[in-house]
Amino acid sequence: MENTNLIDQEQAFEESKEKIFELLEEKKYFRCRDELLKFNAVDIAELLEEVMRKYSMQTAIILFRTLPKGASVEVFAHFDVDDQVEIINIITDPEIKYIIEELDFDDMIDVLDELPANIVDKILDKTPKNERRQINTFLKYKEYSAGSLMTPDYINLRKNMTRREALDHIRDVGMNSETIYSCYVLDGGRKLVGVVSLRSLVLADENTKVSDIMKEDIIFAHVDDDQEETSELFKKYGFIAIPVVDNEDRLVGIITFDDILDVIEEENTEDMERMGGVIDNTDKDYLDTPVLMHVKARLPWLLVLMVSYVFTGGMIASFEKSLSAVIALVAYMPMLMGTGGNSGTQSSTVIITGMATGDLELSDVLRVLWKEFRIGIIVGICVSILNYMRIVAFDHNGSLVALTVCLSMVLIVIIAKCIGALLPMIAKKIGIDPALIAGPMMASLTDMVALGTYFTMARLVLKI
Amino acid sequence: MENTNLIDQEQAFEESKEKIFELLEEKKYFRCRDELLKFNAVDIAELLEEVMRKYSMQTAIILFRTLPKGASVEVFAHFDVDDQVEIINIITDPEIKYIIEELDFDDMIDVLDELPANIVDKILDKTPKNERRQINTFLKYKEYSAGSLMTPDYINLRKNMTRREALDHIRDVGMNSETIYSCYVLDGGRKLVGVVSLRSLVLADENTKVSDIMKEDIIFAHVDDDQEETSELFKKYGFIAIPVVDNEDRLVGIITFDDILDVIEEENTEDMERMGGVIDNTDKDYLDTPVLMHVKARLPWLLVLMVSYVFTGGMIASFEKSLSAVIALVAYMPMLMGTGGNSGTQSSTVIITGMATGDLELSDVLRVLWKEFRIGIIVGICVSILNYMRIVAFDHNGSLVALTVCLSMVLIVIIAKCIGALLPMIAKKIGIDPALIAGPMMASLTDMVALGTYFTMARLVLKI
Repeated sequence: MENTNLIDQEQAFEESKEKIFELLEEKKYFRCRDELLKFNAVDIAELLEEVMRKYSMQTAIILFRTLPKGASVEVFAHFDVDDQVEIINIITDPEIKYIIEELDFDDMIDVLDELPANIVDKILDKTPKNERRQINTFLKYKEYSAGSLMTPDYINLRKNMTRREALDHIRDVGMNSETIYSCYVLDGGRKLVGVVSLRSLVLADENTKVSDIMKEDIIFAHVDDDQEETSELFKKYGFIAIPVVDNEDRLVGIITFDDILDVIEEENTEDMERMGGVIDNTDKDYLDTPVLMHVKARLPWLLVLMVSYVFTGGMIASFEKSLSAVIALVAYMPMLMGTGGNSGTQSSTVIITGMATGDLELSDVLRVLWKEFRIGIIVGICVSILNYMRIVAFDHNGSLVALTVCLSMVLIVIIAKCIGALLPMIAKKIGIDPALIAGPMMASLTDMVALGTYFTMARLVLKI
Repeated sequence: MENTNLIDQEQAFEESKEKIFELLEEKKYFRCRDELLKFNAVDIAELLEEVMRKYSMQTAIILFRTLPKGASVEVFAHFDVDDQVEIINIITDPEIKYIIEELDFDDMIDVLDELPANIVDKILDKTPKNERRQINTFLKYKEYSAGSLMTPDYINLRKNMTRREALDHIRDVGMNSETIYSCYVLDGGRKLVGVVSLRSLVLADENTKVSDIMKEDIIFAHVDDDQEETSELFKKYGFIAIPVVDNEDRLVGIITFDDILDVIEEENTEDMERMGGVIDNTDKDYLDTPVLMHVKARLPWLLVLMVSYVFTGGMIASFEKSLSAVIALVAYMPMLMGTGGNSGTQSSTVIITGMATGDLELSDVLRVLWKEFRIGIIVGICVSILNYMRIVAFDHNGSLVALTVCLSMVLIVIIAKCIGALLPMIAKKIGIDPALIAGPMMASLTDMVALGTYFTMARLVLKI
């Protein structure tokens, strides 16, 4: 990419991709490499993964091996975990050793976590004892915990260092640190006493001491904290890095914001999936997940919900006689159930996102219900009036049927809105993820409400 | 908070909150302030907002005024926009002037954007002409564009500066810069020629020149880019800041990662809301939004979907005679429609999140359909077998009715899964947000598929 005329990045990327594929067809690997090296490591990884899919893993590895050593490690860090494992299985032992040693500590742990135990043992065999112990500690942190996200490569300062000493220390050890922008001040017992930003160090006067500029109101995570809680801290405070302490309050590592961006994406996906009735326990890509794993993620919910249909089925069966008397009533069942479900889902969605962003607290429950009640009345009446006109005008059903449908509609919308708002709050109160409740379960509940209301109203209005 | 024993942060926060409320009751404002000042500005803003709700805006402003000047601006920046506007309307002109002047440029633009034009004019009246021109330019960038997120306060270096000169320059102007961690190298025409991180500057040798360490493969955004695209760049590359260029490729500002975290949250909420059938065009909190605004966000979808119920109603009406002949069939309608809807939503959800995280491309459509088809067969058969047994054993309906229901079920699940996968991909292809499709619209479509399949199957099996 010429940087004097900043042409459209995506276009440049696509053009280079075509060029690389052409060069690959002609087996001009080194010209391919030159083309690749115009890009950021993230993009090179993406391009090589396309080569894996389009040609073969072998071809991608030939190209990967042409990269300068430093670049190759950075690119490796950006591959999907599955691809990393496959590459490790193909390349030679010295290559593995080099990559593992040069990876950032947290990336290395992620790779080791996915490799079979015998390969991990083989790799760790050649690692110095101290480092091996540390690696084993990190491998033991629970998945999805703050501990599993952190890296031990942080900058460690002392309270009584001068600005000069601190900056010299940073220059000495900075190369191997994940970030040098947040530095951590520890006491003799490795307890965290302050945080200093590189910004404040650089901007400070020559004879400032670390203790003069360090912040003492430290926001930190605990190794066992859930990654979601940790990502909330980043969202709230906008820090570049957050320190992580162990059970004895000692600093054991830091988490940097770039790793949290991945966590936020994972958590968003999980919320969406749960609302959509998918219980996915893998981190694999859609296409890499076998059919049976997909079935496993989806079948349980569908079966649980079957139970609710036993009830709706039973309700209808017990009303069968009246239904045959006025068979026209059947035609409006989907509308009432559907509108009830949609109204409830709307409310749940708004409440769930409100709670997630911190706008709503559990203590707001009465204000929420009162609001949803009023929204339900207005929405219900609007929908019902339109329906009444439609039914009388086009469906040629008696006005009593229309009245039954429309009175039911108002009630169903109001009840569904209140249930839709209440359920996620109850879920949160008792410690279940509200998103688990809002999706398909909401629909089943509102189905029952819709049918119950409809049949009761039919009995009252039509005297059947 | 004592930092030598890092007690649970949340607990400390709650305890301080109680203490502040107690002190407030006794009107001990200055002791309140001391308690407040133990916290991060984000937390102080949160505490003051609780004071607004629990007591009054006036009380909160009294407390706000006790804060040291520097802290007060930082706290102000973290209030909700609504609260900021209300405060501006209450405090004195010199106070407004001070806050506006001291706010970070991007925060100032956000506040000015929300204020009535006459107040903005009054504030800008006292601003120097140059700055006023810049503010007016920034106020004109479209909402939700990269331009509306950026700040012009970046560090600007020259190619031929030495490390020493660059660091001295950073120290000179750093105080007023949003970040000093990414510095930007411009040519004579203000075009961006490179990016230098403070990290590489600090770690470089004494006699390095900026041109030796600057990166030339620059990832940048354009002022008119949508904020969602811009947040994708941050997620992909993990940068601390991204430069923003105008139509002439000149650097006009930078966006920092902390502002992007808010964007990611907004975009995520929007996706969830769209899937839940809510079209929300306000950024207001749930409780601050009037009932009629909530109605406006929800009614349109419900009305659009009404149209689809005209079709399902029509399908049922045209099948009425057969239904009265075998009224037992009605009892299974909710189950078939519900399971169809849920199956479809599951597929849509997985496809939408897959496309959002970049795991799936539009070109994967055939592989996706083939996968969903196989998933549908297995899930459909499992669900159907259980249902067949249930219907024959407990519902005492003939095995022909059971057969009709179960054969329909298999077909409905398969079709719903394929539609559920296909719709979001079509939506993306034609440039509609897939989340708009996946929620309630999916349910309506699968309702029709379910009824159509069921009635056709009933005609074939039961000869009605």
